[in-house]
Amino acid sequence: MPFEHWAKSLGNYYFVYKHSVNKRRFFPLTFFQSIMDFFFNPKGIAVIGATPNAKKVGYHILKNLLLGYKGQIYPVNSKYKEIEGLNCYGSVENVPDPVDLAIIFIPAPKVPRAVEECAARGIPGVMIESAGFAEVGEQGKSLQTQLKRVASETGIRIWGPNCMGLVDARKKHIFSFVSQVMWNEGLLPGKISLIVQSGLLSAGFLIDLMSHGISGISKACSIGNKVDVDECDLLEYLAADPDTEAIALYLESIPEGRRFLDLCKNCKKPIVALKGGKTSSGVKAAMSHTASMAGNWRVVRGALAQAGVIEAHDFFHMVDMARSLSIYPDGKGKRNGGIAIITFSGASGIISSDLMEQEGLHPAILSKSTINSLKRIFPQWMPVSNPIDLWPAIELNGGQKSYEEAVKAVCHDPQVDAIFIHLFVGGITRQLNLEPIVEQARLAKKPIFCWLLGTRNDANFFQQKALEAGLPVFKEISRAVQCIKAVLLRTTGP
Amino acid sequence: MPFEHWAKSLGNYYFVYKHSVNKRRFFPLTFFQSIMDFFFNPKGIAVIGATPNAKKVGYHILKNLLLGYKGQIYPVNSKYKEIEGLNCYGSVENVPDPVDLAIIFIPAPKVPRAVEECAARGIPGVMIESAGFAEVGEQGKSLQTQLKRVASETGIRIWGPNCMGLVDARKKHIFSFVSQVMWNEGLLPGKISLIVQSGLLSAGFLIDLMSHGISGISKACSIGNKVDVDECDLLEYLAADPDTEAIALYLESIPEGRRFLDLCKNCKKPIVALKGGKTSSGVKAAMSHTASMAGNWRVVRGALAQAGVIEAHDFFHMVDMARSLSIYPDGKGKRNGGIAIITFSGASGIISSDLMEQEGLHPAILSKSTINSLKRIFPQWMPVSNPIDLWPAIELNGGQKSYEEAVKAVCHDPQVDAIFIHLFVGGITRQLNLEPIVEQARLAKKPIFCWLLGTRNDANFFQQKALEAGLPVFKEISRAVQCIKAVLLRTTGP
Repeated sequence: MPFEHWAKSLGNYYFVYKHSVNKRRFFPLTFFQSIMDFFFNPKGIAVIGATPNAKKVGYHILKNLLLGYKGQIYPVNSKYKEIEGLNCYGSVENVPDPVDLAIIFIPAPKVPRAVEECAARGIPGVMIESAGFAEVGEQGKSLQTQLKRVASETGIRIWGPNCMGLVDARKKHIFSFVSQVMWNEGLLPGKISLIVQSGLLSAGFLIDLMSHGISGISKACSIGNKVDVDECDLLEYLAADPDTEAIALYLESIPEGRRFLDLCKNCKKPIVALKGGKTSSGVKAAMSHTASMAGNWRVVRGALAQAGVIEAHDFFHMVDMARSLSIYPDGKGKRNGGIAIITFSGASGIISSDLMEQEGLHPAILSKSTINSLKRIFPQWMPVSNPIDLWPAIELNGGQKSYEEAVKAVCHDPQVDAIFIHLFVGGITRQLNLEPIVEQARLAKKPIFCWLLGTRNDANFFQQKALEAGLPVFKEISRAVQCIKAVLLRTTGP
Repeated sequence: MPFEHWAKSLGNYYFVYKHSVNKRRFFPLTFFQSIMDFFFNPKGIAVIGATPNAKKVGYHILKNLLLGYKGQIYPVNSKYKEIEGLNCYGSVENVPDPVDLAIIFIPAPKVPRAVEECAARGIPGVMIESAGFAEVGEQGKSLQTQLKRVASETGIRIWGPNCMGLVDARKKHIFSFVSQVMWNEGLLPGKISLIVQSGLLSAGFLIDLMSHGISGISKACSIGNKVDVDECDLLEYLAADPDTEAIALYLESIPEGRRFLDLCKNCKKPIVALKGGKTSSGVKAAMSHTASMAGNWRVVRGALAQAGVIEAHDFFHMVDMARSLSIYPDGKGKRNGGIAIITFSGASGIISSDLMEQEGLHPAILSKSTINSLKRIFPQWMPVSNPIDLWPAIELNGGQKSYEEAVKAVCHDPQVDAIFIHLFVGGITRQLNLEPIVEQARLAKKPIFCWLLGTRNDANFFQQKALEAGLPVFKEISRAVQCIKAVLLRTTGP
C-alpha cells in the first residue's frame, strides 16, 4: 500500500496516534508537530486545479504560493503544459519528488478521486479548498462521507474541505486563495495563531487586521468542514509551535469535546475562543454555514472556562485579547488586579476607573513613595493620585519625560499589577519614544497597555511603533480594560 | 446698571427664566435658544488673555477664532497694541460694539474681576477656559464662589470655568484652545452635538473621531465646572437647534436632576448619556477632576432610562449610538426587532445572529416572496435564508447588483425592521455605489447599518462615502448590533 511509504518514515507512530487517542499523552508534543508538519512546511506542493485563468480560484492559489513559498510547486491540470513558468502535470501521479502536500481546488464531485490519487502517489496530506460538501445538502454530504472513507482507508490527512487553508504571515506560506491584496497591504508577521471555521477570518478579516496595524499574525488555519484535520489536531500542533505565543479559535462546533478540553487544559499558551452558534438564531445560521451541530452552549461555556479558555464574543474582541496575551502570556494573577492609570484627561481616568471596577479590577492605591516620586514631575499645587492626570506634568516637562518618569515611578510600586497609559498623538506627543517606557515596564514585569487617540496618520504611525515595541494599543477604553482583565485574571465577560 | 442694557433688549425674559425656573414651560424652546445664542453665534468676541506668544493658550484661542469665526474679534491684553493684525485693547471696557461674548484665559485669581468688567461693559456671556477653580482645592473653590456671586449679581451668564468652550464644526466656530491640528485633519461637519464635562471630549477625542471619518459633529460644548451654564441650559438650546439631530452627554454630576430629567423627557431628539463616576473608584477619580459629587448611580440610571435616555458605557460607544440615532431618529420600535442580515461570510452572519439574540433582537424570518426575489440572484443550488450569505450571488452577479437586489428584496418584507449589511472593501467591492442601496432603504423606511472590513485606505475611502450617504458604518459586529438596538428599541445594555 502506498500509504506505508510515508507511514513507515514516521516509524508507525501515526497509527498509534490515530487509533489510540487516549494514549497520546505518552508522546511529546513535538511528535504531533512532526506528524502535521507537511501541512505547514511541505517540501513540495502539488496544486490540483491550477490554472492560468486569473478569474479562477486555482490561479490565485498558485500565485500566492509563487509569492512566498520557497519549496517545489507542481501545477496539476491536464489542459496545460506550463503555468506561470512552471511545468504543469497532467496527473498527480506524474508529479516528481519531493511532494508532501496537495492543495485541491476542483469541483466537489471530482475531489474524492483526486484525494485517492494523492494517497496513491504517497502524499501524506491534502488541503481541500473547494466548497460543495456537507454545507450544501445531501449530495455534498455524500461526497464528504467519501472523503472520510478515503482518509480512514489510506491514512492520508485531509484539511478541509470548504476552507481557505493556511496563511502563515511569518514564513510567507500562503496556501490559500485569499486576495493578493494581502501581500501589498496586509502581510504583517505576529505572534498569535488562529484556528477558524470560517473563510472570512483567514482572509478579509486578516487583511483588515494587518492592514490597519491592529495585529500581526503567525498562522491562520481555516479548517472548513473539518472532515479529518480539526481544531484538536491544530491545537496540538500550535501548542508546540515556536512561532505561536497565543492561540485564538473561532468554532461553530466542538465535536471532540473531551479531547479539546484536555488539550486546552494542558496547553501552556493562552487560548481565546469565540463560539459561533450560541443562541437559537446563531445555531440555525451555523447549520447552513458549515453544517455544524452546536452543543448546549451553557455546558460548553463552563467547561471551557474551567479548562482556562478565555471566551470572546466578537471577532476583534477575540484578536485583541489574543494579541494582549501573546505579549503577556505570564501576566496572570500576581497580586490583586490594581492598575496604575497614567492619563492626560480627567474623564478618561474616570471612565477607566469605572470600567475596571465593573470588570473586577481597580485603580491601584499608590504607595507614599510612589506619590513622592511622581510629585517631582508635577507642579507644586497638583495633588497626585491614581488615576494620574499627567497633563500638568506634560505642560511642565513635555510628554517624553513625563510619561517616562510616571511609568518608572509606578513600576516600583508593589501595589501596581499593570500599567494603563493614555496617549494622544498628532500634537505634542507625536515623537514619543516608546522604547524606554515599554522597557521599564518589561524589566519590572508589569504588563503595560495603551489607549490611543490621535489623527489618522499619526495614530497609525504610532501603532506600528507600538507593535514593534510590544505595547498593546486600543481605541476604546472598555476594550483595553477587557484585555487587561484577560491578562491579569485570565478570564473575561461580566 | 449696565446689565439692564441687554436684559432690556430681551424684554426682561431672562429674569423670568433665571428666577422662576418652574415657569419655563410657558415659553417656546426657541426662546431658550435666543437667550443662549450669544454663546454660539456672537456678533463680536473679546478675547481676554489674547497674546502673540504661540506657546500660550491665549494665542490658540485667538488663532482658532481667526480661522473660522466671521464676526468681530477683539484681543484684550494691556501689553500689546496689536495681535495678529487686530487692534488689541487694554481693557474690555474699551472694546467697541458689537460685542456679546468674552472668552477668558487668564490666571484664575484674576478671572472674577474680569467677569465683572465684562458685565459692566454690557456683555451678556463669558466663556472661562482657565483652570484653577474648584478642581484644585480650597483657594480655587473660593474663586469659583466669587464667580457664582458675580453671575447672580450681574446676570451675566458664565460658561465654565476649567473648560474648552465650544467647537462648532458646521459653522466653524471654534471658541476653544484645541490644537489647530483640528482644522487640517479633523473638521468634519455632522449632525450630533455633545455636552461634555471634559476637555478631552471636545478636543483630542473630536480630532480622532473626525480625522478617522468615524463621525462628523455639529456642536461640542465643554462645560467644565459649570458654575452657571450647565447641561440643562445646553440641552434646552440643542433641543431647538436645527443643526443638531441627536445629543450625546458625558457628565460627572447631574446636580439639577429633576430639571434634567424633565428636559430629557420633553426632548424630541434622541439623547445618549455617559456618566463618569458610577463606581466607587470612578467617583473618587471624578472628585479630583471636576470636583463633582456623584449621586447614587443606580437611582440615576433608572430615572434616565425612564426619561428615554440611552446609556453609553464608553466614549466611542456614546458617539456610535448618537450618530446612529442622528441618522434614524424615528427608527424606534416599529415592529418586532427583526433584522435582515446581508453578508458575504457565514461566520459573520452567525456571530451577528448570536449577538442580536443576546441583545433582544433577532434575524427576521423572511417571507416566501422575499426568498423568491432573492433566489433570482443566487445560483440554483443555493438554499436562501436569513442571514443571507451573498457570496455565491456576488460570484455570479458582482457586488453592486447583488447588494442592490438583496436590499431591494428585504425592503419589501414587512418582517424586516432593519437591514444589516456586511462589506469588505479593497477587493471586488471597492467601487460599490452606495447611493441606490441606501436610497432604497430610506424609501422603505428601514434603517440600514453596515459592518465594514477592508484595507486601510479603501475602508477609509468607503467610510467617507458612507458618511455622505448617511449609512452608519462599524468595525465590530457587536457595536453595530448595540447601535441597531439603540435605534430600534431605544435602549441599550444587557
